[in-house]
Amino acid sequence: MVERRMNKAERDAPDRASMRRATSAEVAHLAGVSRSAVSRTFTLGASVSPETRRKVLDAATALRYRPNQLARSLIMNRSLIVAVAISYLDNHYYPQVLERLSAWLSGAGYRMLLFITHGEQHFDPVLEELLRYRVDGVILASSAQSLRLAQECVKAHVPVMMFNTADRAAAIPSVIADNLKAGSVVTEYLIAAGHRRIGYIAGIAGESTSDDREAGIAQTLSRHGLPPHRRAAGNFNIPEALSAFETLRAGDDPPDAVICANDHMALAVLQVARVRLGLRPGQDISIIGFDGVEIGASPGFDLTTYAQPIDLMVEALGAGLMRMIDSRSTIGEQVVVDGDLVVRASARRPASGMVLMDDGREIWRPKT
Amino acid sequence: MVERRMNKAERDAPDRASMRRATSAEVAHLAGVSRSAVSRTFTLGASVSPETRRKVLDAATALRYRPNQLARSLIMNRSLIVAVAISYLDNHYYPQVLERLSAWLSGAGYRMLLFITHGEQHFDPVLEELLRYRVDGVILASSAQSLRLAQECVKAHVPVMMFNTADRAAAIPSVIADNLKAGSVVTEYLIAAGHRRIGYIAGIAGESTSDDREAGIAQTLSRHGLPPHRRAAGNFNIPEALSAFETLRAGDDPPDAVICANDHMALAVLQVARVRLGLRPGQDISIIGFDGVEIGASPGFDLTTYAQPIDLMVEALGAGLMRMIDSRSTIGEQVVVDGDLVVRASARRPASGMVLMDDGREIWRPKT
Repeated sequence: MVERRMNKAERDAPDRASMRRATSAEVAHLAGVSRSAVSRTFTLGASVSPETRRKVLDAATALRYRPNQLARSLIMNRSLIVAVAISYLDNHYYPQVLERLSAWLSGAGYRMLLFITHGEQHFDPVLEELLRYRVDGVILASSAQSLRLAQECVKAHVPVMMFNTADRAAAIPSVIADNLKAGSVVTEYLIAAGHRRIGYIAGIAGESTSDDREAGIAQTLSRHGLPPHRRAAGNFNIPEALSAFETLRAGDDPPDAVICANDHMALAVLQVARVRLGLRPGQDISIIGFDGVEIGASPGFDLTTYAQPIDLMVEALGAGLMRMIDSRSTIGEQVVVDGDLVVRASARRPASGMVLMDDGREIWRPKT
Repeated sequence: MVERRMNKAERDAPDRASMRRATSAEVAHLAGVSRSAVSRTFTLGASVSPETRRKVLDAATALRYRPNQLARSLIMNRSLIVAVAISYLDNHYYPQVLERLSAWLSGAGYRMLLFITHGEQHFDPVLEELLRYRVDGVILASSAQSLRLAQECVKAHVPVMMFNTADRAAAIPSVIADNLKAGSVVTEYLIAAGHRRIGYIAGIAGESTSDDREAGIAQTLSRHGLPPHRRAAGNFNIPEALSAFETLRAGDDPPDAVICANDHMALAVLQVARVRLGLRPGQDISIIGFDGVEIGASPGFDLTTYAQPIDLMVEALGAGLMRMIDSRSTIGEQVVVDGDLVVRASARRPASGMVLMDDGREIWRPKT
């Protein structure tokens, strides 16, 4: 049932005539200054005397004048808008990224035009639209199709950066954690805790983040002369992660430690292990994720995870994109950032190597 | 450590001259049609013959022409952008709303300019910016300051709708669930399950959603001749929700059923009850939330909750705003939508009243 309550009578209908917007000429007239002075007052960094500025602002307030950002964008050839394309928000890592990115861009005078692509395979309509809005730059996060979309942006001469996925060969500017190292550290941790049978619930094949983490696992096991890891694909979604977990457990000599390609899958696996299978994570089985989502720290999860340094990554992302926008170039950097293995209760703890940080987190570092 | 990998040498620097954008005149010339035909081809709903459209699109592709949305916006006096202001994304309900709203707006030809306000008390810079971009409409969600911001938008003749919070007196258009009824149904449920000592962890005082839910609780207890509920404020954030839970438990004759003003707080309370206090939710204590966030359904939570019909609410929100935009009016509807009490394991179950839905959910309806 939908109930609609109309309130027309409760409020005065606004007078149509009053809806006409004041022009800068009217502001200039009332303030007794030139139109150029009005324009300069509303341009960041433009020179205008304090007295003129005060007169203009008073007149603008009186007339409810607001400079038209769209018109100004056309004149400056800047929209001050960055498009952010993201596949899903159900992985809690991405809302955290959006929050911080929004704050960073806002501090730089930019706004975020948000595209949630729902994992669509056909990006062309999104791309077309994104380019039509003449956004100054594009950020692509968590999208299986990021690379192709990024290449289209470069062809269209729009600065673009990829977040949390990279393609070294195509040299698209990007910000990622050192995922090879992350996979290696997580594996060293499990080996130090006595695990020898390690399983990996992979993300989407061909996506650098999951592939690099897996390569780090494989290299580390091989370096220790241990048998290779078992694997099953969870494709970053919960139903497939849970059936991957079943597949791993159904095999011969099933793994007693399961590394998930991200926290989103690890949290689901952890819950099923505890509630449905009656296992005690950290004792009967070790479960580790990657990302460091906030909810993983809550007492019901207490998830051991390789945390990505989200603030550092967002800073590198914003700063990298701004450099490209300022130089009107599509050539940028591929930034790789270090993370930390955050020790909690979902995986068995090694005897040593723990370091207590100022922020209260306990992290683990392999002997080097 | 931040490692920067430059890849300048790996890619050809784009030729500056090639960055000049093709004009509609050039497209018209190549296609052998008028400029007006080019314009009509790129205008939704404008009349143009299939053959002309094909010629224009071929020429546009060849020249990499894209209509300038900003310029078109100025001409049409439409930006095709809706601003969405939201306080936080850590309450998982809001990423779910954003995903669905993004899909809805995209289907209507609109894009979402996202403002995350981080609960700022001073909205003036956000408001100024939002109005400068000449957005066609504004959606305000989950913000303690929504009402004031909404009133400023109305003053500036910008269509605005509030989501999940309402102010009947000010007659700002809004979409909310019937929160008074929601509070009542949840209380009837607990009474039917045998509870008599009910506690409420409230949201932010003065915010309609939490206040209405609480009024529903109070009225229902009074109607049954039961003692009033205990209350403590959790203000929609986890640390305060947990200390509110402590406050409720520390009192004389503590409640054996705790209603939280949203799932975000209920999930935290549920975890602390189970893991830290060793209570068995659904047996030793009943915990209920409001909203119906997806993670509440996972086996580690199994949260009984009054679910808001998110698809219906987003549909009402989008459609309501479009009606205002189309009529260039700030007068709209206050829409109130019904929800459902979703039965799971975190609260004791009454003997009867359960209905199994087609989508597999078990819901509870009070006898009427």
